[in-house]
Amino acid sequence: MKALVHTEKTGFDGLSYREMPDILPKAGEVRVKLKTAGLNHRDLFVLNRHKPTDPPLIIGSDGAGVIDAVGEGVQNVQVGDEVVINPGIGWKEKSDAPPEGFEILGLPDHGTFAEQVVVPADNVVQKPQYLDWEEAGVFSLAALTAYRALFTRGRLRAGMTVLIPGIGSGVATFLLQFAKAAKATVYVTSRSQEKCKRALELGADKAIDSNEDWNQALGGEKVDLVIESIGAATFNKSLDQLRPGGTVVTFGASAGDDIQINIRKFFYGQYNLLGSTMGSAEEYKEMLQFMEAHQIKPVLDQMYPLNQFKQAFNRMEEAAQFGKVGFFMGGNRYWTLRR
Amino acid sequence: MKALVHTEKTGFDGLSYREMPDILPKAGEVRVKLKTAGLNHRDLFVLNRHKPTDPPLIIGSDGAGVIDAVGEGVQNVQVGDEVVINPGIGWKEKSDAPPEGFEILGLPDHGTFAEQVVVPADNVVQKPQYLDWEEAGVFSLAALTAYRALFTRGRLRAGMTVLIPGIGSGVATFLLQFAKAAKATVYVTSRSQEKCKRALELGADKAIDSNEDWNQALGGEKVDLVIESIGAATFNKSLDQLRPGGTVVTFGASAGDDIQINIRKFFYGQYNLLGSTMGSAEEYKEMLQFMEAHQIKPVLDQMYPLNQFKQAFNRMEEAAQFGKVGFFMGGNRYWTLRR
Repeated sequence: MKALVHTEKTGFDGLSYREMPDILPKAGEVRVKLKTAGLNHRDLFVLNRHKPTDPPLIIGSDGAGVIDAVGEGVQNVQVGDEVVINPGIGWKEKSDAPPEGFEILGLPDHGTFAEQVVVPADNVVQKPQYLDWEEAGVFSLAALTAYRALFTRGRLRAGMTVLIPGIGSGVATFLLQFAKAAKATVYVTSRSQEKCKRALELGADKAIDSNEDWNQALGGEKVDLVIESIGAATFNKSLDQLRPGGTVVTFGASAGDDIQINIRKFFYGQYNLLGSTMGSAEEYKEMLQFMEAHQIKPVLDQMYPLNQFKQAFNRMEEAAQFGKVGFFMGGNRYWTLRR
Repeated sequence: MKALVHTEKTGFDGLSYREMPDILPKAGEVRVKLKTAGLNHRDLFVLNRHKPTDPPLIIGSDGAGVIDAVGEGVQNVQVGDEVVINPGIGWKEKSDAPPEGFEILGLPDHGTFAEQVVVPADNVVQKPQYLDWEEAGVFSLAALTAYRALFTRGRLRAGMTVLIPGIGSGVATFLLQFAKAAKATVYVTSRSQEKCKRALELGADKAIDSNEDWNQALGGEKVDLVIESIGAATFNKSLDQLRPGGTVVTFGASAGDDIQINIRKFFYGQYNLLGSTMGSAEEYKEMLQFMEAHQIKPVLDQMYPLNQFKQAFNRMEEAAQFGKVGFFMGGNRYWTLRR
């Protein structure tokens, strides 16, 4: 089968579109013939974490397709079922942290940027019928991250005000859609006027320039919750925007890991800072119900054939996208670009 | 009446033991003839926050005594009642932050380092009978801070493991006593061998040298909860000691306000950082019930006559104390030092 494989060299240079041997599902596993897959920032990090001396690795966490082989003892699906994949392996119930041994598909196990992937049967769920294949393949990791950050960790309720710095990423667009569906007031920031415009079209109540004074741009209004994924570049601006007793949920650091905070200001404000990553299978199912109930579809930025992976990675590295970037599989020649 | 007054000069040099006019309670207020008062770190901060150009200020937050005058409409106490004072003014119900206008007794209003203090009637509670006057006068601010940090914010439950860096302060000794009463496992740190010994006598399960490698000293054992009041000097050691999904509650920064953290490590750990200060009247009453149910008495370090205030402040500034430092009032000559 064709696959996007990382080998020999660290980073992007080690990536190639090439032939790999087919894999067979073991007991409790299923093989999915993939129709689409979604690109995440994680796929960039993986290129630096996977050692060139390790065996070649098929990267990719998100995907959707059709079951084409099942291992012994699999009960929940059968050959021919249309499924989406939960990329979180080994985290079943909602808990304050994943259990020992939790991994995300695409490192160390072979991922979804291929014509086939083998995953535990527990990690596939029937494809929601209201989503087409492009939508079904690209949402899992980002939507699950957004769901846990916003609801499990941030405890968002109707009537609350939430700030999302850096609208544009897949997770950020889900945060915006989920928070509006939950009847919150939503403010977003971006350095791009175009992305601010898109966010307003998608339902944001205010969209401000990230480089401005946020407090001024929001008319001095403080917020209940900030979902922070930028890191050093925006962290203290986010903290300054909280009402007393307010909460920052952090799940990313795309612009710097090391942050400095004044802890006295933090405890006088009775603030909360809560870390989040991914989510459990229980949250994945809750999230699918929530999305279906509100008919939420991922914002699709651009789909590429898998062999044009360089353009896809470039688009994400340049933060040019609004919403999800994805792949359709090489074998499926009938796919056409949506835009 | 005699009082400890801050005036004319910033800081400690502006402090003097002198005569001040008596105060009368207005409607809804009571006057307490003080028998004892407790010293807190706040009393040091106040000396820098109170401007020499402002009217002279009687400092002090903690105290206990006898009601000797009541204003109009006061129902809950009468002249002659023995009471303790809740120094938090204007924060009634448990909430995620105090309401606008919340103040602590001793700035901007006259405090307890005097023969008399006037407070809202809501801020006095009958003195618990199992406490003597020395104990009753010194616990309020520290015990309330410890109670909110540990239970409301940290959600301590039986069976959890909690780490208290820097045992010795009034709050830290309450944290230790409260956590043991709640059937938690408690580890403490101190730079002082003597304080480690005292903490073990008071029930700590382990007491380690603050300068050691904590992870090694605790045999690699991680904890559910850290109650952090030291700040920059220990913050990252505290964070490193958390289990995945664990919580740091922060309420102090005696050794540095500015902390640097790696936010990626923080969110991968699914950590929680929660700020806390003081507590509400509701928590004060819960705390009194908890203390009485478990017969918890404050650890008394040293009581001084109020005119020997310099020795008391020195003892706290040098962090020489284990437990509470307090004053008995000048007029009560019958008081004798316990140690």
